[in-house]
Amino acid sequence: MNLYGLMMKRRSVRNFEDKKIPEDVVQQLLDVVTNAPSGGNIQPISVIVVQDADARKELARMVGDQPWVKNAPLSLIFCIDFYRIKKWASMFETDFKGEKAFLPCLIAYADLMCSAQNVVILAQGHGLGSVYIGTILDVIDRARKYFTIPKYVLPMMVLSIGYPKSAPKNIPKLKRDVIAHRERYTILSDDEIKKAFEEKYGKFEENVERYFQRAFVEVVEADKQQNEGWMDSFKEEMKKLNIKNNAQFLFKLRYPSDTMIRMNESLIRSFKNAGFDFF
Amino acid sequence: MNLYGLMMKRRSVRNFEDKKIPEDVVQQLLDVVTNAPSGGNIQPISVIVVQDADARKELARMVGDQPWVKNAPLSLIFCIDFYRIKKWASMFETDFKGEKAFLPCLIAYADLMCSAQNVVILAQGHGLGSVYIGTILDVIDRARKYFTIPKYVLPMMVLSIGYPKSAPKNIPKLKRDVIAHRERYTILSDDEIKKAFEEKYGKFEENVERYFQRAFVEVVEADKQQNEGWMDSFKEEMKKLNIKNNAQFLFKLRYPSDTMIRMNESLIRSFKNAGFDFF
Repeated sequence: MNLYGLMMKRRSVRNFEDKKIPEDVVQQLLDVVTNAPSGGNIQPISVIVVQDADARKELARMVGDQPWVKNAPLSLIFCIDFYRIKKWASMFETDFKGEKAFLPCLIAYADLMCSAQNVVILAQGHGLGSVYIGTILDVIDRARKYFTIPKYVLPMMVLSIGYPKSAPKNIPKLKRDVIAHRERYTILSDDEIKKAFEEKYGKFEENVERYFQRAFVEVVEADKQQNEGWMDSFKEEMKKLNIKNNAQFLFKLRYPSDTMIRMNESLIRSFKNAGFDFF
Repeated sequence: MNLYGLMMKRRSVRNFEDKKIPEDVVQQLLDVVTNAPSGGNIQPISVIVVQDADARKELARMVGDQPWVKNAPLSLIFCIDFYRIKKWASMFETDFKGEKAFLPCLIAYADLMCSAQNVVILAQGHGLGSVYIGTILDVIDRARKYFTIPKYVLPMMVLSIGYPKSAPKNIPKLKRDVIAHRERYTILSDDEIKKAFEEKYGKFEENVERYFQRAFVEVVEADKQQNEGWMDSFKEEMKKLNIKNNAQFLFKLRYPSDTMIRMNESLIRSFKNAGFDFF
């Protein structure tokens, strides 16, 4: 197997066969979670293994009605877990107060993502596909309640895994030399930045179907799975907001900055509710 | 090649041969950075490729005198990069304000770690070893200045890569069933938590050399590379602080919580200095 080829072919999969993943494969996936790099090898993470049909349905609903989360035979909920080490420290007359500072939280999140990405790659090696679901961050309190997650534990990322029924091709990506800088950070000129994104997304065009097919493959793939018809609502909104280019499509319609800022308060509150208090 | 075996054998390497990494391998490593999963496929990351001898030396000094950073022929500095997309958005009569909210920052950090972990795995496939250096977070301002990193760009993680001269064996890890929970989070009993960590680190013992050899392999590996003799200073401190168990070793001596909390202010200030303001 060519590892480079495997990694370059990876695409987020949102269309899964109704087929169970064998337990020995699940165990391998959990092994590479355990063996991922960890800052100071402290391993402040936990993973909730969701295979039960009801739990899959509830998780899918929670993260914003994403049917592939329900259809995937396996979802892993990756959590920052300071509960276990705090408990351990307290039993031995010392204490761990990672929840009181931003740094240990960042390092734990890095650990967690190393583990998750290990799973992505090993899963692909087993012919499985996967998709990250970041919107668990919007519903931390609800997820903590449903999955009986205690204080000092934060669900931060979901990875849904299964055998792909189909997978997107040609996801547009920035070129290597846009992301990589040699020796020092090199500020690109306005024209270079324009070119970088135009090469990624292609020219904006009036034919919205063709535009999405090419530039927002994952939206199209997602739409196929959903009843609600994202594409149609996108098209309508595009007309209403008078969207005229890729950047406006992204930041006026798809990921409007004001929404992120508005959500800030509730995200920070969820952290506080879980006992994380460094703001 | 057995991908599972490759991932289970991965250890952080801190002892590198003085041998250049061929340019085509470097380019492959950068390709898998570019092709990693990205939330909304926005790709808000940059990577600074450090190979120059002076820059390696300065980077090693910056992150706390870590000689393996200097000795590694290649270090990658992974940055959250909102500069590029903010610039792009502003050219097209819209705006991206990710720096004003915690959520986009978290998602970008997840992207960044997916990229970094792709590199870890592909590097190992090429017979290379790597080690994450998280202490770049302690010196964000200094790193931004030296590597000419603009506003809205945050260096968050370093990965140092090279051909291993030696690699640690048997890094102690928590067992799979400690980290993985089936369907719901299961709170371990005090005894189960004690057992989990005792199985990981082994019993604490007076013979500090043997204790470190077994429980803190990476400290020993690191010590071999450094002039300062971490081990000796650890031993002295252990006596002074009357360290009597693994938990106290970790949280009284190695990663004292109060230090993390003290560092909180400067970390948040560095974020603010880079224009990130969601606290």
